[in-house]
Amino acid sequence: MIIDCHGHYTTAPPGLKEFRDLQIRALTDPAINPSKASVRISDDEIRDSLEGAQLRLMRDRGIDVTIFSPIAGQMAHHIGNAVTSQLWSEVANDLIYRVTQLYPDNYIGVCQLPQSPLVPPKSVIPELERCIVELGFIGCNLNPDPSGGHWKDRPLYDRIWYPLYEKLVELDVPAMIHVSGSCNDCFHHTGAHYINGDTTAFMQFIQSDLFKDFPTLKFIIPHGGGAAPYHWGRYRGLAQDMGKPPLAEHLLKNVFFDTCVYHLPGIKLLLEVVPTENILFATEMVGAVKGIDPETGYHYDDTKRYIDQVDSLTETQRALIFEDNARRVYPRINPILDRIVARKEIAHG
Amino acid sequence: MIIDCHGHYTTAPPGLKEFRDLQIRALTDPAINPSKASVRISDDEIRDSLEGAQLRLMRDRGIDVTIFSPIAGQMAHHIGNAVTSQLWSEVANDLIYRVTQLYPDNYIGVCQLPQSPLVPPKSVIPELERCIVELGFIGCNLNPDPSGGHWKDRPLYDRIWYPLYEKLVELDVPAMIHVSGSCNDCFHHTGAHYINGDTTAFMQFIQSDLFKDFPTLKFIIPHGGGAAPYHWGRYRGLAQDMGKPPLAEHLLKNVFFDTCVYHLPGIKLLLEVVPTENILFATEMVGAVKGIDPETGYHYDDTKRYIDQVDSLTETQRALIFEDNARRVYPRINPILDRIVARKEIAHG
Repeated sequence: MIIDCHGHYTTAPPGLKEFRDLQIRALTDPAINPSKASVRISDDEIRDSLEGAQLRLMRDRGIDVTIFSPIAGQMAHHIGNAVTSQLWSEVANDLIYRVTQLYPDNYIGVCQLPQSPLVPPKSVIPELERCIVELGFIGCNLNPDPSGGHWKDRPLYDRIWYPLYEKLVELDVPAMIHVSGSCNDCFHHTGAHYINGDTTAFMQFIQSDLFKDFPTLKFIIPHGGGAAPYHWGRYRGLAQDMGKPPLAEHLLKNVFFDTCVYHLPGIKLLLEVVPTENILFATEMVGAVKGIDPETGYHYDDTKRYIDQVDSLTETQRALIFEDNARRVYPRINPILDRIVARKEIAHG
Repeated sequence: MIIDCHGHYTTAPPGLKEFRDLQIRALTDPAINPSKASVRISDDEIRDSLEGAQLRLMRDRGIDVTIFSPIAGQMAHHIGNAVTSQLWSEVANDLIYRVTQLYPDNYIGVCQLPQSPLVPPKSVIPELERCIVELGFIGCNLNPDPSGGHWKDRPLYDRIWYPLYEKLVELDVPAMIHVSGSCNDCFHHTGAHYINGDTTAFMQFIQSDLFKDFPTLKFIIPHGGGAAPYHWGRYRGLAQDMGKPPLAEHLLKNVFFDTCVYHLPGIKLLLEVVPTENILFATEMVGAVKGIDPETGYHYDDTKRYIDQVDSLTETQRALIFEDNARRVYPRINPILDRIVARKEIAHG
């Protein structure tokens, strides 16, 4: 089975944005009072939004299942306050839930958290719990910078994050580290802020002893781990200079990377320096880079093609990257995948 | 000839820090009034600081010349105001000048700029001009984030930077993009802020048309270009989605990368995806990573060893990386190198 661990509902029907626009207008016009009930999106609109885009691409590329979450760039935790983020997250997560119900064989949910700048992260626990326990989601996206490019909140190793980590451990779900849009002109959204967010989180994990306190806590750093694999020697050396244990011991039981690296040399580097046990297949399609690479004739984000071209991978390693690591990092995926397999067996007689 | 284009005077004698500490104390205690004349550093101290460190390592590794600048992490443009930065830059640059006078065969100067948060960059022009014209320096370090991890200033493509760029073009000197220390807890100094600064600058160049306005302006992005080469497909794709020309045309006549990547797979990737014409040899020793890599038995920052191991490079390509590109990117290095060569010929009879 091929599992894409990193997809956002970037093609969501216009009713989602209409709600969000209304919610943002309501911040300055109290006469507007959008509720969850005001979201107008039909099942047919959801089907249309996916059939011609993600679902078609998944079929074209041989991807069975996508771990699917709300649009990362539009989480925009910096807009409004914690109440704003709570309602917006509920709406965005409920829409993902509907996708998982309409396409239970193809989509498994991951939630957006109702973070807000300088608000203690424990405030997101109820929505996390609702999504995992009630909606059957298997993880969450955690924004290390709710201020949207101003980095005003505490580093991920700060104890202010601990109540959330305790809940993640209790629920046995991982968090993907994922910033949202940038409201700092210095940082282009997908070209700088995303990659910087990944690199920054990785270094925060190196400089701390977070995983001594949470030995079973798991994070996925997307976009191939930001700059980390390219600078793997730098990070091994920095950890060493700080007196930390080797990275394998220090954080590789807890930190995983996806394969959203959009060219073959980058994927080769990732596979060479990071243990295969720490790499999860992902595309983030339809996402940051939508075009076709003139050098290959295929979409930049068709990452499966790059992995398929790395001859040195054994079948066991391929299975780890495409399926087994996801099963280990997202334990709650297993019963869902079992049901998918059972349905397929029935369908095929 | 082997030219290391990226060295900082990290081993500067204690008199430098004593001056800086005094200057920082003076910010809150006006009775203290440190002047340039109060800096107490002897020539012997300078010799001692280099002979056992950078100079020894240069000899061990076969590096002839280092393009040398003040300690990047201590530029700390966020401390005090523009007046503070002016005096501190003069002191730091004057010390580099003394190094170049004591070791004219080994060190060539690059200056720190007296930037200050939210102060228009044209304010640094007099110190830039002094260093290039009077001290014989060949370039400068330009901090894209004088606020030290808060990214409060304008992106590098903003017109507020243009007067400085006009002067760089007029003087025919490049700028190395180099952030300083981080005063934002989220960003580890050398593990996150440095690499993010590089990635951010590269993306700022992609999203703008800066080099249409300044076709001869040249920047070196250090630390192997941050995350850029690892995500080269992403950046090619983002430029393409934005309707920009291919990177070769869009910015590779103006943007260069150094080789401060501290492991062989990273160097291999850099050499594979970035044209050889755009890569300048560098170590940044003694710098961010001081240890010995247990996997190789050599210093992480002994980047020459990695390049030497890449068999696919031709002799012409090696000459570009180790010497010729530096001569092209830093045109003012040429008469200095000519004099070094002439002295060596005389010395060898």
